[in-house]
This record gives sequence, structure tokens and C-alpha cells, in this order.
Amino acid sequence: MKKKISEAVIKRLPRYYRCLTELEQEGADRISSHALSVRMGVTASQIRQDLNCFGGFGQQGYGYKVHDLRAALRGLIGLDRTYSMIILGAGNIGQALANYSGFDKEGFYVKAMFDVNVSLTHRTSRNIPLYHIDLLEKYLESNKVDIAVISVTQSEAQNVANRLVASGIKYIWNFTPSELSIPEDIIIENVHLSDSLFTLSYRCRENGV
Amino acid sequence: MKKKISEAVIKRLPRYYRCLTELEQEGADRISSHALSVRMGVTASQIRQDLNCFGGFGQQGYGYKVHDLRAALRGLIGLDRTYSMIILGAGNIGQALANYSGFDKEGFYVKAMFDVNVSLTHRTSRNIPLYHIDLLEKYLESNKVDIAVISVTQSEAQNVANRLVASGIKYIWNFTPSELSIPEDIIIENVHLSDSLFTLSYRCRENGV
Repeated sequence: MKKKISEAVIKRLPRYYRCLTELEQEGADRISSHALSVRMGVTASQIRQDLNCFGGFGQQGYGYKVHDLRAALRGLIGLDRTYSMIILGAGNIGQALANYSGFDKEGFYVKAMFDVNVSLTHRTSRNIPLYHIDLLEKYLESNKVDIAVISVTQSEAQNVANRLVASGIKYIWNFTPSELSIPEDIIIENVHLSDSLFTLSYRCRENGV
Repeated sequence: MKKKISEAVIKRLPRYYRCLTELEQEGADRISSHALSVRMGVTASQIRQDLNCFGGFGQQGYGYKVHDLRAALRGLIGLDRTYSMIILGAGNIGQALANYSGFDKEGFYVKAMFDVNVSLTHRTSRNIPLYHIDLLEKYLESNKVDIAVISVTQSEAQNVANRLVASGIKYIWNFTPSELSIPEDIIIENVHLSDSLFTLSYRCRENGV
């Protein structure tokens, strides 16, 4: 029987992976769940519980083999394959994501960008083609795209999301402040930067700074 | 007696604020906790519970006055004042944040950027000065900075964080993949973009895409 994995556990997997990548780079061979918990800022029992969801990887009194656990997580997170992405909106954030080479290294390739203003093209530095947004549906007809990134202005976000969904896109990475209405079978991951910033201002106010 | 507000509630406040801002823009006068819950994707009882942490704002059978609740949240989140920010690292993400005018509108002003490479200066378009990172301590001696944004490369992140903390910075917005070691009294808010992307690849793998 397949156990349903909670959202909270899924959200922690990339952190485990990131932490183990660092450990491997530092030359660590194995790590105890205690040491891992200190590094991650979660309890050792939380770690055991999380990894048990996926069959467990540790050995009593021995801890985890860094390389093996990292490899297992890599597979779990789906990083043993590549993904094609497109970016909708070539503004500040869209350009920054397009120019960032870190995602390539993990197998996420930006294949094209779309904007209402195609003269922005000279600003991307990695030979990623920039098309007019009117060409979106045509592009999606003949190109397989796994993940669509939405970084248009807030007022265009819902319309762009609708067009992506109508064209068969199932995975959306949303950088606009909008809570987009999408069908239940579409997976959306939101990066609400202002929400993140506002938790800092909340703390400032709370501390009377 | 001051009640301790949970991290989860604090994280939801900016979402309430965002949602109410949208409602106000749409001309809504009031909203029931049910309608607000549908829009937010949380339960109505959750909303009542969250807002009760701060004294409650609704009226039985009447709902919430959009303008008043938004104004109250604005104060709670600390948006009734301004904040000065600096950005460490003028790469893709640093530049995108500097060029984004949306934060200004909420009172967050980027006063300066710092990088090891000051020739990047021509890329910022909003007259924000770019200084060599060696000048960081000197700048912080004579300028009040509320929030420091870290968008340097991962290998420099901890060193930059140490320097910020030593110079008295209390609030850090971290865009690097690093889990930074900082003293307990420093507030750090992390935006781990790859963690967010990896939850999408997890879903792709899970769904066999």
C-alpha cells in the first residue's frame, strides 16, 4: 500500500538534499541523525520519521551514509532526469531566473521566454529565445514543456495561467503575488516574495525596531 | 498578558493582507469569513482563530470590513512605516530585487548594493549606488539599515552574514541556498528558490511525468 506523504515532509526533502549535498562537498562519509538534526534545525526523531516515509535509509547506531542518502533523495525528488521550462514574463524576476545557471546543473533547462515586449531580448545572456506571448499556444503545440514559470505582472497572471492550463501545462511555478485559480489536477508552487519580506517587517514591528 | 503568536499564523498574515488588498482594489466593502476562506484556501474557523490572536476584527453575522481589516493588518505587519535595505551581491537575483519597484510601494527602500565587482553598476536602473563589499562596515557605521538582503554566491554567504551581524544588522533576507549560522537574536527569512522548484520535480516524479 502506498502511504500518502504529507505536504510538510515533501517540503523538507529539498532541504535534506541541499544539506547532504553540502556534506558531500565537505567530504563527509556518514552522519548521525543527531548531527544531521543540528545542521537542519529539526529534531532527530523528525528526521527518522520523515525518511521512514520513504522506506528509511539509516542504520541503528551507524547513522546515514551521506552519498547513499543523497542519491536516494535525488531520485525521490525527481532529479535523476531533466525538465524543460518556459518563462512567461521577461521582467526583472523572469530575466534573473533565465540568467541563473544553477537550475541547469540540476537538470532544469529554460527553453524559451515569452513576453508582450520582445525587444527585451537583448537582456538575456544565455541564448534563450524570447517570443511574443501570442506565440505561446503554437510553441506548446510543438514543444514538450514540463514546468511553466509565471513572472508576468499581477494583472496578467490569471490570464496567462488560464492559457497555460488550456494548452496542457500541469506544473506551474508562480512568482506573481496572485493566488491563481487553477484546476485541482494542476500543481502550482508559489514564490510570494513580498510575503517573505513582510514576515521580516512583522518582526521589526514586534521588536519595536 | 501578551500571547505568543505562532510562526504559522505570522506566515499567513501577509497572505491575508494581499488578499484584502485585492478585495479593496476590486471595490469590495465587506467579506464574510466564509468567502474569505474560499479565496484564501483555508477554513473559515482558521481565519477566525488567526485573527483572534490579534484581538479579532470581525462581527458575528456581518463579516469583515475590508478596508478596516486591511488597515489593521497593515499595522500588524509593520507596513505603516518605512524600511531601509541594502543588497549584498549584485548578481541576477540581487539586480532583479534592486530593479523591482513593488517593494518601494510598501515602504521598503533599497539604499545601496554591495559586490566584489563594482563594474556591474551600469546594470542597475534605479540610481541605487553600488559599492565595493570592502566598504560594507564603513557604510553601516554611518547609515541606518533595517534589513540586509544576501544574494551573493553560496560560498561567500556565511562570511557576508558574519560581517552583517558583527556590524549590528538584525534582520536578514537570505536568497542563497545556504542555511546560515547566525546568533539567536538575529531574524532570518530564507527564500530557497531551488527548494521550491524541487517540490515541483517531486510532483512530476510522483505523477510519473
